[in-house]
Amino acid sequence: MTPSTPFQSLILAAGMGTRMRSDTIKVLHPLLGTPLLGHVTQAALAAGSRQIIPILGHQRERVEAWLNAQPYADQIRVAVQNEQLGTAHAVACALDALDPDLPYTLILSGDVPNLDAQTLRDFINAAAASGCDLAVMTAILKDPASYGRIIRSTNGHLSAIVEYKDASEDQRLITEINAGIYLARTSFLREAIPAIMEAGTNNAQNEYYLTDLVALAARKEQARAWPVPTPELIQGVNDRLDLARATAYVRTRTLERWMKAGVTLIDPARTLIEPTATLEPDVVLEPDVSICGTSHIASGAYIEQGCRITDSHIGPGARLLAHCYLNQARVEADASIGPFAHLRPGADIGPGCKVGNFVEIKKSRMEEGAKASHLTYLGDAQVGAGANVGAGTITCNYDGKNKHRTTIGPGAFIGSNTALVAPISIGAGAYVGAGSTLTEDVPDRALGVARGRQRNIEGWAEPDPE
Amino acid sequence: MTPSTPFQSLILAAGMGTRMRSDTIKVLHPLLGTPLLGHVTQAALAAGSRQIIPILGHQRERVEAWLNAQPYADQIRVAVQNEQLGTAHAVACALDALDPDLPYTLILSGDVPNLDAQTLRDFINAAAASGCDLAVMTAILKDPASYGRIIRSTNGHLSAIVEYKDASEDQRLITEINAGIYLARTSFLREAIPAIMEAGTNNAQNEYYLTDLVALAARKEQARAWPVPTPELIQGVNDRLDLARATAYVRTRTLERWMKAGVTLIDPARTLIEPTATLEPDVVLEPDVSICGTSHIASGAYIEQGCRITDSHIGPGARLLAHCYLNQARVEADASIGPFAHLRPGADIGPGCKVGNFVEIKKSRMEEGAKASHLTYLGDAQVGAGANVGAGTITCNYDGKNKHRTTIGPGAFIGSNTALVAPISIGAGAYVGAGSTLTEDVPDRALGVARGRQRNIEGWAEPDPE
Amino acid sequence: MTPSTPFQSLILAAGMGTRMRSDTIKVLHPLLGTPLLGHVTQAALAAGSRQIIPILGHQRERVEAWLNAQPYADQIRVAVQNEQLGTAHAVACALDALDPDLPYTLILSGDVPNLDAQTLRDFINAAAASGCDLAVMTAILKDPASYGRIIRSTNGHLSAIVEYKDASEDQRLITEINAGIYLARTSFLREAIPAIMEAGTNNAQNEYYLTDLVALAARKEQARAWPVPTPELIQGVNDRLDLARATAYVRTRTLERWMKAGVTLIDPARTLIEPTATLEPDVVLEPDVSICGTSHIASGAYIEQGCRITDSHIGPGARLLAHCYLNQARVEADASIGPFAHLRPGADIGPGCKVGNFVEIKKSRMEEGAKASHLTYLGDAQVGAGANVGAGTITCNYDGKNKHRTTIGPGAFIGSNTALVAPISIGAGAYVGAGSTLTEDVPDRALGVARGRQRNIEGWAEPDPE
Repeated sequence: MTPSTPFQSLILAAGMGTRMRSDTIKVLHPLLGTPLLGHVTQAALAAGSRQIIPILGHQRERVEAWLNAQPYADQIRVAVQNEQLGTAHAVACALDALDPDLPYTLILSGDVPNLDAQTLRDFINAAAASGCDLAVMTAILKDPASYGRIIRSTNGHLSAIVEYKDASEDQRLITEINAGIYLARTSFLREAIPAIMEAGTNNAQNEYYLTDLVALAARKEQARAWPVPTPELIQGVNDRLDLARATAYVRTRTLERWMKAGVTLIDPARTLIEPTATLEPDVVLEPDVSICGTSHIASGAYIEQGCRITDSHIGPGARLLAHCYLNQARVEADASIGPFAHLRPGADIGPGCKVGNFVEIKKSRMEEGAKASHLTYLGDAQVGAGANVGAGTITCNYDGKNKHRTTIGPGAFIGSNTALVAPISIGAGAYVGAGSTLTEDVPDRALGVARGRQRNIEGWAEPDPE
Repeated sequence: MTPSTPFQSLILAAGMGTRMRSDTIKVLHPLLGTPLLGHVTQAALAAGSRQIIPILGHQRERVEAWLNAQPYADQIRVAVQNEQLGTAHAVACALDALDPDLPYTLILSGDVPNLDAQTLRDFINAAAASGCDLAVMTAILKDPASYGRIIRSTNGHLSAIVEYKDASEDQRLITEINAGIYLARTSFLREAIPAIMEAGTNNAQNEYYLTDLVALAARKEQARAWPVPTPELIQGVNDRLDLARATAYVRTRTLERWMKAGVTLIDPARTLIEPTATLEPDVVLEPDVSICGTSHIASGAYIEQGCRITDSHIGPGARLLAHCYLNQARVEADASIGPFAHLRPGADIGPGCKVGNFVEIKKSRMEEGAKASHLTYLGDAQVGAGANVGAGTITCNYDGKNKHRTTIGPGAFIGSNTALVAPISIGAGAYVGAGSTLTEDVPDRALGVARGRQRNIEGWAEPDPE
Repeated sequence: MTPSTPFQSLILAAGMGTRMRSDTIKVLHPLLGTPLLGHVTQAALAAGSRQIIPILGHQRERVEAWLNAQPYADQIRVAVQNEQLGTAHAVACALDALDPDLPYTLILSGDVPNLDAQTLRDFINAAAASGCDLAVMTAILKDPASYGRIIRSTNGHLSAIVEYKDASEDQRLITEINAGIYLARTSFLREAIPAIMEAGTNNAQNEYYLTDLVALAARKEQARAWPVPTPELIQGVNDRLDLARATAYVRTRTLERWMKAGVTLIDPARTLIEPTATLEPDVVLEPDVSICGTSHIASGAYIEQGCRITDSHIGPGARLLAHCYLNQARVEADASIGPFAHLRPGADIGPGCKVGNFVEIKKSRMEEGAKASHLTYLGDAQVGAGANVGAGTITCNYDGKNKHRTTIGPGAFIGSNTALVAPISIGAGAYVGAGSTLTEDVPDRALGVARGRQRNIEGWAEPDPE
């Protein structure tokens, strides 16, 4: 197949996956932020698939709702398999959805998430170049266990797939197994599948299997097989142990990519980067850092241990001290954040700012060089350049019914332990006395203060009897 | 042995374990929350042991105190080995404690913590069914190193154990080794051990060894041997490296059990669940979560990275954001906790509540839907349903001498940066102005406020010289 | 070589290391807190090297600045290689810097950080004892890949190094490879290197290689080779994947050393101890703890999960609860810190003190038994023995221009939510009312209070329409 050879993809996604022991259908279980089905769909699209036909059954509404929310929803055409009567039956349910003008059809499993676009392309190219009706993806396993064995004829072509229980001792020594991924000529599929369905089942489970398709193609010497470079690629997910293994594979592959691109990971075994995130060279991640969603970390940023960063942007040279929690936040160049800072959606920290420990920021902009170093909550606030927000400052942005804004002018100094009752504006260069609760605006360069007068009552504490 | 065949257990636990380089005797070193000795004792009891006879020496008082505090203390009968003169001598010290009416005696080591009840039962069943006087537990090792080798006669029975230093080149090729765990007929033990002690020692260490017991039984063709399924099971702990290895084995086995039961672990290598904790299906644990003690996590709960949960209950659908610290706390259904929340003993968070960042709660009940979102300390408090506790609220529960209670009525609104000096009661639907320090009760639906009047002093800040 | 046989060391450190994809030269990339070059330099000095001659090129100023800041700067004599024309050319650039009175010269690579002093000493002793002109350090690899192969003559001496591309099929089966580390007689080096340079290059890269030195020595039967005990020792760092591997090696070796010395690591795979830190027996580290810099942890200290400790001292029996962040701090015996405490430079916590959650301490001394349990900032403060600093206390140490000191006397009780505007002194046994902002000193045993009077406004909240 040249890149111009068009194909479509079927994805088997109807089964509940009982060994997951979950209320959620297997293909919706997330792997590093994306459901299993999403990994398969994305790989097929990246390999050039013109349309995607997921075959749905259990929890069909949930799966469709998820598919419809994806950016590639217009390339999805759902088929329905109300009863689960085997893999060939699943394909039969999707025959009407196939576009006959697309000459090839790739058959994928929604629970095999590690197959990447490059492997799919190599498989499709080899299959199309051979001109065969049906190509089977295989793997060479050290321990082939109870997988179906690949039987090749003397010319190397695929002659049969023998299920383990039917295999002879000699056949069981074969280490090449059926991965359950196929490329078929669409025309072949549209003829062969109805034939399989008409023939009926002759097995104990009363199910129709895609391996019968292989038998049909092999009879005409039209079956081929290609092994993947490494068996992890075709690892299926049947239970949570498999899910953890598949996650580890994607995680490791992602980390190696970023290390080669110039990112230092102090301990890759203790690092998590979701495949959707991006990083620049000379970023350093200490152990236990998670970079999730669409986060981007710019060059020279240093992220200390235990930070969890989701859908956020970290500017060049910024430093996040340990245990920061960021979600939909933005940190500009050379800012210093944490330890123990919580930047919530809309936190927008300007260049060179300092956000210190036990500080929470939400929907607030801090201009260049502003500081909020300790024990502070800034919500719905605008903090001017160079302003200093003292320890224990709280913007009282919520009156029990509505949220209001706080504005702090450039160069203002907010004394410690201060409550700013919004809506309120503190002027440029203004000064707020420590311990004040302010409800009215403070003009530029003015001092605002509100506190009780100190009284000392001598002899208040009884002398210690000793 | 049928389940009705009774046996008792000796546990060798007298040695200090100098390679641990510790002030604490080896068998009291904890492995995932339970001392080594506890793992051995629990496995023996779970396998059906009728009584447990730990043989104590070093730090006997500490070990006895620990044993006496266990729920199974009444099944424990301590024997004392004041001098450590070898394993046979240890058993000699326990002969008087043996119940002669219990036909079998299992001999265990207090520093072999990974043997589980199922393996013990299989071993005991096989031994009892054979009718032998003495059964030896063995293991097949890839590298048998300097362990004693198992010599079997042509009928497969155990004929001798040859110490490594006495073994011929051919014998050293044997990979089956003595694990040091035995099942003996009690009557045989009561005859053979005195015989060994009377014969005296003839080795450089002047010690009496249990392998002499094997020689006695083998002479009568009464010795048998059974290998364990995997050598990790009989791994002894001699130093902290061994302790780390044994911990990893128990940890991994525990995690696999929960994954098979439907728990998602994003990264099992970065998860710790103590064997005493329980989880339900569809729980998700992010990396670096520790579930300790008797904690229970209900279905659908989602625990983010870095949470450490001890002896606590997490309700269904609850979410713990990153880096929460819980000890003897209770979180009900669908509550949201953290990030950076600290729930101390007696924190009791109702359904749908929100506890946010930098919040500490101790001995306090929050009723359904109540919120304490930021920078708050609640101690000895009762918070009514739907109440909103503002940022920076502190219950002043301690006057330097006693603790007092704070009551906040349902639907009350506590403004930010407020100190509530207990004992105090804020009425239902009442409102507390931000920045107040309250010492008196606030009636239902009233406003309580206590703060200084704001003054603005214009021109307070000198204009910038530039 | 006896310990009195003197040698000097050349370190090749001129190359940029483009596969690192970094703005920083490779040898300055840190490995557990010390640049690669530092690991090599320290090992050479610990092995007894009399002077160190780093051969610098790229980013020479940065490397020299780093070297000059080291305690061993006076043992460093820099040589310069302005163009990088191969390893022999690098040595040629350093010939003038060699001390001819030091009979041996060790040639090291600045990007091979795992070689330890013991391995170097063993290599040097063997080489010097043999009396050879040139010794090559080798390694036995399972997969020798494209490394140069070691050819030995029948007497076992080194006869040649054959580059992989020039090797025959038989030679490629050799698993002993050239590690690129050499010991040469200084006199031999001073003759042979000029000869190599005069002969000119005859390879495609136009570079001068040190393997030509081997050819010269072998011709005179003056070449020898010794393999290192384990190939990780000579692992070079070429990209960030290599850096992560080398880091893991040093990390694991360091952890094993401390475990053998009596430190319990709950999960070594999740522990980081920099080689510069020290620990005593019976310390326990939970997972995700990092001990960095010159930190020292005394006997019996227990460090919970997620703590990050840099250049700090933890006293015997102290407990750090989870997620503490310490930098240049001191914690004395039996103190309890955290969870979520931040001890900054100059935090000095006395015996038995308690520092609780969301507390930040900087340049402050707490005397024995003092407490600051929640949501507090202490900066530039002195807290007397047994004083109780209430929740939400803030020392207002900064007025926008200068820092000022706060003094709290022994036994004083600071009520919650209090701001202490420094400079200020609270007397011994004095009491500060909750919610106060104090600007004046409070005498011994006096009560200081400053707050507004409470008013309750009844009926303030509208009754709920329902």
